Amino acid sequence: MRKQEAVEVVEIRKPIPVAEAVERVLSHAGKTGTETVPLEESEGRVLASPVRATHPVPPFNRSPYDGFAVRSQDTAGASGSSRVRFRVIDEIGAGTVSAKTVGEGEAVRIMTGAPVPDGADAVVMFEQTVEDGEAFTIRKPFEPLENVSLKGEDLEEGEEVVPAGSFIHAGTVAVLATFGYAEVEVAKQPTVGILATGTELVDVTEPLAPGKIRNSNSPMIAAQLRRMGIGYKLYDAQSDDLDAVAEAIESALTETDVLITTGGVSVGDFDYLPAVYGRIGADVLFNKVAMRPGSVTTVAAGSGKLLFGLSGNPSSCFTGFELFTRPALLRMMGANKPFLPHTKAVLGEDFTKANPFDRFVRAVYDGKTATPAGFNKSNAVSSIARGNALIVLPGGTRGYRAGDEVDVLLLGMEEGSAKWME
Amino acid sequence: MRKQEAVEVVEIRKPIPVAEAVERVLSHAGKTGTETVPLEESEGRVLASPVRATHPVPPFNRSPYDGFAVRSQDTAGASGSSRVRFRVIDEIGAGTVSAKTVGEGEAVRIMTGAPVPDGADAVVMFEQTVEDGEAFTIRKPFEPLENVSLKGEDLEEGEEVVPAGSFIHAGTVAVLATFGYAEVEVAKQPTVGILATGTELVDVTEPLAPGKIRNSNSPMIAAQLRRMGIGYKLYDAQSDDLDAVAEAIESALTETDVLITTGGVSVGDFDYLPAVYGRIGADVLFNKVAMRPGSVTTVAAGSGKLLFGLSGNPSSCFTGFELFTRPALLRMMGANKPFLPHTKAVLGEDFTKANPFDRFVRAVYDGKTATPAGFNKSNAVSSIARGNALIVLPGGTRGYRAGDEVDVLLLGMEEGSAKWME
Repeated sequence: MRKQEAVEVVEIRKPIPVAEAVERVLSHAGKTGTETVPLEESEGRVLASPVRATHPVPPFNRSPYDGFAVRSQDTAGASGSSRVRFRVIDEIGAGTVSAKTVGEGEAVRIMTGAPVPDGADAVVMFEQTVEDGEAFTIRKPFEPLENVSLKGEDLEEGEEVVPAGSFIHAGTVAVLATFGYAEVEVAKQPTVGILATGTELVDVTEPLAPGKIRNSNSPMIAAQLRRMGIGYKLYDAQSDDLDAVAEAIESALTETDVLITTGGVSVGDFDYLPAVYGRIGADVLFNKVAMRPGSVTTVAAGSGKLLFGLSGNPSSCFTGFELFTRPALLRMMGANKPFLPHTKAVLGEDFTKANPFDRFVRAVYDGKTATPAGFNKSNAVSSIARGNALIVLPGGTRGYRAGDEVDVLLLGMEEGSAKWME
Repeated sequence: MRKQEAVEVVEIRKPIPVAEAVERVLSHAGKTGTETVPLEESEGRVLASPVRATHPVPPFNRSPYDGFAVRSQDTAGASGSSRVRFRVIDEIGAGTVSAKTVGEGEAVRIMTGAPVPDGADAVVMFEQTVEDGEAFTIRKPFEPLENVSLKGEDLEEGEEVVPAGSFIHAGTVAVLATFGYAEVEVAKQPTVGILATGTELVDVTEPLAPGKIRNSNSPMIAAQLRRMGIGYKLYDAQSDDLDAVAEAIESALTETDVLITTGGVSVGDFDYLPAVYGRIGADVLFNKVAMRPGSVTTVAAGSGKLLFGLSGNPSSCFTGFELFTRPALLRMMGANKPFLPHTKAVLGEDFTKANPFDRFVRAVYDGKTATPAGFNKSNAVSSIARGNALIVLPGGTRGYRAGDEVDVLLLGMEEGSAKWME
């Protein structure tokens, strides 16, 4: 009897393409709302409203060089054989303003970043002068506004500088500071719960016993969320017991927007997640994706919550998070770039066995070649420790050869390179 | 007189190649030592000692499928016309161990991840059987160890899984958890100070006044450090006053390993940092780099501390941090991949003006093309808000054309892509 049930479940699982699965998840990602954070805590968040220029940039006509501010009309006719002479009447550094107005034949010594004084409309660089006490001469004429950074030439007041939905990086912070945003309106972060299931699991602090393995998925997902700056609630791992799992999930859903479970989504006798989704009335968006690893990844939605049923295999679990959970969380925060960045690379090793499903192979990408990170069975622990990318090998009837151009999803570039660019 | 001094300073500044400047900085980066953190705080840190397998992986002979564990010798001769029959004597899920030993003609129903019971040496998948109550038949023979994940086939006990000096990402955390590392030995983070100089600077919370701009470099650097997970001490910005700047720097150095200043490194009348380095007895490693922007970037070392004198221009300051400060901090932490990752891209726009110095152009890299992020003067605010990469255009006598292949340094891939992979 049991076997018959399992077969029925298998039969109703229709694999859908990865892109379609991603789309289904994103279409159920509701917005989290907004909140205000201090500028110094804004890095890594998603901007909820656009940054506008609250003043022109530059805010005044500025000298881009160290030199002398002059009236361009006074430089007319200057040449090597007929040098024109100026008297220096003042000196200003960045942050100071000359109280004087530059008159005929006069100049103000000026440092980079300082405002061009009244009367002047050009800056002569030191290198273009011969100094002589409180005076200097030049040998060429200057155009009006020559060597002047014009007020507003970079940005006009009111202009949108960074659109809502942007990821706030250090450059964004510089812009926010420039325009006086001591507080920043950002997207609220979803509350995410992590709940591992599996009778085989013991906690990281516990000794192993026969048949047991340590729960590595919960800390891993916590780290994936931590990288995104998103907090989490970590629930105690549950044994494979339908009632206990259902109860734990129902309880967790009362205090989370998104619940990530691991394990229990396959079709074994103790894979209770499908039954749990039925019991709590969540709509299963899909329970089979045409991908390896992670084909049993299941996503359900109900009461405005998203439930990610990731596989218990660490590699499948990792990939399921990056492909489905991460973009969903980013979409909930209104991010306009929620997907993993991708590029093309040269495949570093043969992958000759054809597979009807798309494969996502953990790999080391060095900016040119993507090489499988090792033993790549879905439960391999060693490959998950390596690599910064997923090679995408579309499903089909043929394998792939070293040297083929392949798509690569970039998991993060924080680790960097062992060598300075050649 | 003043002019003469400035000229002399200019003359003794010999630009050195960027790669050499990076190397000089790294050769002065002393190690920070190590500390222990809880596993859940280890993401983003640098591993101080290798992670070793504290047990084999898998820890026991494991079933990779749902099916039946049998003795392979009992399957000999099975065929479609001569099916072999087994009696099911027990059932085990992952995390449980059968108390029974599989004898002749016997089988144990087994779920994925469960240990293969004593006596058995092969697993028959459900799909390969016809069930019949508490028995089943098969139509093909099985090899010894067929469908068995062998104890230790992924990792042997004691094997090094992740080397010291590795960046700890989510996959690393999974490995640490698997092997029971509830605490992790990581590199101590350097104590970094940020001190902006410039009479023109007002704080982000202050209104602008004539000639003033807001201090955007300090919050920007704080965000660059925050992305690296490194804390910082933020000092009050200083006006361009030699005594005050020297005093602030001396005081900051008593409580920091690395001090980042912005501004004051050029050769204007109020650029006091060169004099400060002399006064505090720090060795200037270089004060001119053959790069744009940021050619005046100055790095000094003394008493085991590193002083980064970054330019006051936000783009120069940003680039100086990413090229010099970031790898130095990572090297101090023993990171084995301290450099910005790089790749090749197609230049998205002409850059026809030749420059003898290498240019680092802030750009939007989409996985294929790198397009300058906009107005790219070194003080442009708007370009710093955009882009995730620096295009590297080697100095020389020629310009570059759209379509040329160029080197690109990747500043971070956290932001992601607006589209799922095509």
